[in-house]
Amino acid sequence: MRTTELRERAAALDAADPLAPWRQQFALDDGLVAYFDGNSLGRLPLRTRDALARTVREGWGERLIRGWSEGWVDLPSTVGDEIGAVIGAAPGQTVVTDSTSICLAKALHAAAGLRPDRRRLVIDGSDFPTDRYLARQVAADRGLELDHLQPAPDGSIGAELLDSALDKDVAVVLLSHVDYRTGALRDLGSITEQIHAVGALVIWDLCHSVGVVPIGLDAADADFAVGCTYKYLNAGPGAPAFIHAARRHLSRLTQPLPGWWSSADLFAMSDALEPASDARRLLSGTPNVLGLVAVREGVALTQEADVDAARAKSELLTGYCLDALDTIVERGGELEVVTPRAATERGSQVTVRVADARSLTTRLIEAGVVPDFREPDLVRIGLAPLTTSFEEVHAGLDVLADLLGLG
Amino acid sequence: MRTTELRERAAALDAADPLAPWRQQFALDDGLVAYFDGNSLGRLPLRTRDALARTVREGWGERLIRGWSEGWVDLPSTVGDEIGAVIGAAPGQTVVTDSTSICLAKALHAAAGLRPDRRRLVIDGSDFPTDRYLARQVAADRGLELDHLQPAPDGSIGAELLDSALDKDVAVVLLSHVDYRTGALRDLGSITEQIHAVGALVIWDLCHSVGVVPIGLDAADADFAVGCTYKYLNAGPGAPAFIHAARRHLSRLTQPLPGWWSSADLFAMSDALEPASDARRLLSGTPNVLGLVAVREGVALTQEADVDAARAKSELLTGYCLDALDTIVERGGELEVVTPRAATERGSQVTVRVADARSLTTRLIEAGVVPDFREPDLVRIGLAPLTTSFEEVHAGLDVLADLLGLG
Repeated sequence: MRTTELRERAAALDAADPLAPWRQQFALDDGLVAYFDGNSLGRLPLRTRDALARTVREGWGERLIRGWSEGWVDLPSTVGDEIGAVIGAAPGQTVVTDSTSICLAKALHAAAGLRPDRRRLVIDGSDFPTDRYLARQVAADRGLELDHLQPAPDGSIGAELLDSALDKDVAVVLLSHVDYRTGALRDLGSITEQIHAVGALVIWDLCHSVGVVPIGLDAADADFAVGCTYKYLNAGPGAPAFIHAARRHLSRLTQPLPGWWSSADLFAMSDALEPASDARRLLSGTPNVLGLVAVREGVALTQEADVDAARAKSELLTGYCLDALDTIVERGGELEVVTPRAATERGSQVTVRVADARSLTTRLIEAGVVPDFREPDLVRIGLAPLTTSFEEVHAGLDVLADLLGLG
Repeated sequence: MRTTELRERAAALDAADPLAPWRQQFALDDGLVAYFDGNSLGRLPLRTRDALARTVREGWGERLIRGWSEGWVDLPSTVGDEIGAVIGAAPGQTVVTDSTSICLAKALHAAAGLRPDRRRLVIDGSDFPTDRYLARQVAADRGLELDHLQPAPDGSIGAELLDSALDKDVAVVLLSHVDYRTGALRDLGSITEQIHAVGALVIWDLCHSVGVVPIGLDAADADFAVGCTYKYLNAGPGAPAFIHAARRHLSRLTQPLPGWWSSADLFAMSDALEPASDARRLLSGTPNVLGLVAVREGVALTQEADVDAARAKSELLTGYCLDALDTIVERGGELEVVTPRAATERGSQVTVRVADARSLTTRLIEAGVVPDFREPDLVRIGLAPLTTSFEEVHAGLDVLADLLGLG
């Protein structure tokens, strides 16, 4: 495709985009040509800025300790249920708490504890480091064998590959819904079914899909899920994560980090912990109120914009980006797209392999285009449907073409 | 003492109080007669309100992902070191992360792992629930025997009592520096020495002492410590906690929740986790930036006011409160002080036992006096030296006297 055509197409796509007005609900005064890192840290919603200021001034400042009994105490579960609506899980199964890493540890221990007679834990050998490190630790703690799947170079996990790792001795499989490197979107429904067929449990890491891909956890009969809120849910740097356990597991599971917030009655403070019967039993310590308020606002915004609409735009954004990258390659740009081509097989990012990826990323940022770099040679272009416009993608990739010497 | 004398004494103490001006650095527009819950949730510092707004607007809003490389990434350790200064620990041994509950789990596992041949874990049987629940879980996970100390009714732990629990089979002792119920202050130095004498390690829970009691962790040669930041450090509801490990243990300890933030090089994302050599190895997932900013401001304020000065005022506040409560008892008020009388043996709260403590607390709050209730019959009067005035104590206890029928 010619560059003039690409420019015109971006304008046309923006004009036809039903989500275009949502961009105005976010802080945009960053002086950037293009922000391609909403898959790492989503933009600041204006309503979140206001809600945080209000919670600080009127909540903490004026209500003080009374804030806890005036609503804060329920935030982990009420905001958890709102995330539940985003990921297709009925209320009572999801709470917002801790970091993704801590939630992963909880899910891994709880899931393994439900399959005490099995000896294997299967993970994606290329998964995000925290997933791998925690799985290794949990395997060591529980005397499990840790097996590593190796996805295809584009990050996809086919039925055959998974089949080769599954048998009746597998207790738990931990997988990311979207591969953080390549952006490959895995088929949550069929993979869950395949794992259940051997009697194992699945933990889905939803960090890179929540908010931009419809996720039917209940419909898929999934067991556990964790995810973060600071990417496409726009809850801010280091906002608390979420953990989900299917209702059928909740009454039986043991969580490895039981604290006073795991209790059915928080202020009973009894000798023996009586855990809550719903997902609150997965809480541990005092929840972070400002973080929860930011998650609440980001999730509400996502719900109002509608995840199906976000997914539709996301497919158009990644499709447009792929076409624009192909044009760069046709013009002699030396890069290779590693993200799967089929719309159904990609999340909301496009990743390219390129020489000197690290220094290229630095030069892009200096030129006002912010993607991110992943070892050893990947540049990730994150496309957040609520905040990224097609003209922004065009402008950002124009800078990339310049830096690749195609100016 | 007569009530008129008490009123005059409060005014005189306020007039002579070098910390009196600090109160103006906090939000005070709560319409309360007296806030006696700074030991649960400290007041909002005005500088924190401003720093949070700035971080949201200019950090998250404008710098976006670049914020991480422009300072956020170091916050867990730089703010940790600032807390280190407050608790008497040299840099590199303290990080701000997670909740107190999660930090407790890390400290318990790490400490027990350093004494692999010993089979006993000793805790205070009356300690805060989260300490007891987590110790029980860690004991179960590691096949340790869990022993419960029973402190004296006033919360004190004498050398003889501790001696009866200690032998060469004790791996770890977990104790709170200040008893959350009675406000008893334990002798950190001599208890640490006594525990070390049998070759065991100590974990100090500093939740109720950090910021209001000088704590010489390095001087006492303490092993581990955890604590929260939303009480006397004024970091806001559910702000992140801290964990400390003595340098001599850091290179050898195994932490049970290793995530990508435990790494020496965060973005290496290598196959095997290479843990940081300092306290950063006790981190797990992405830290909460807003929480860290609030901790940074609260700790700076504490440092500027000076912990020794805070302790001096705290002793005067609790002393004044005890005298005023004695006067209530003399007048026929039916309550019993359970906090130790000696200034060296009490923290910054005074606790009374009273019939119908729960409903009395409710009536106090309705009358604009906010203490808190603890099962089954305790009312805690928290006195935060940076924000509580003597006249406030007087006014609050006047309301208490009224409600006890002494009006």
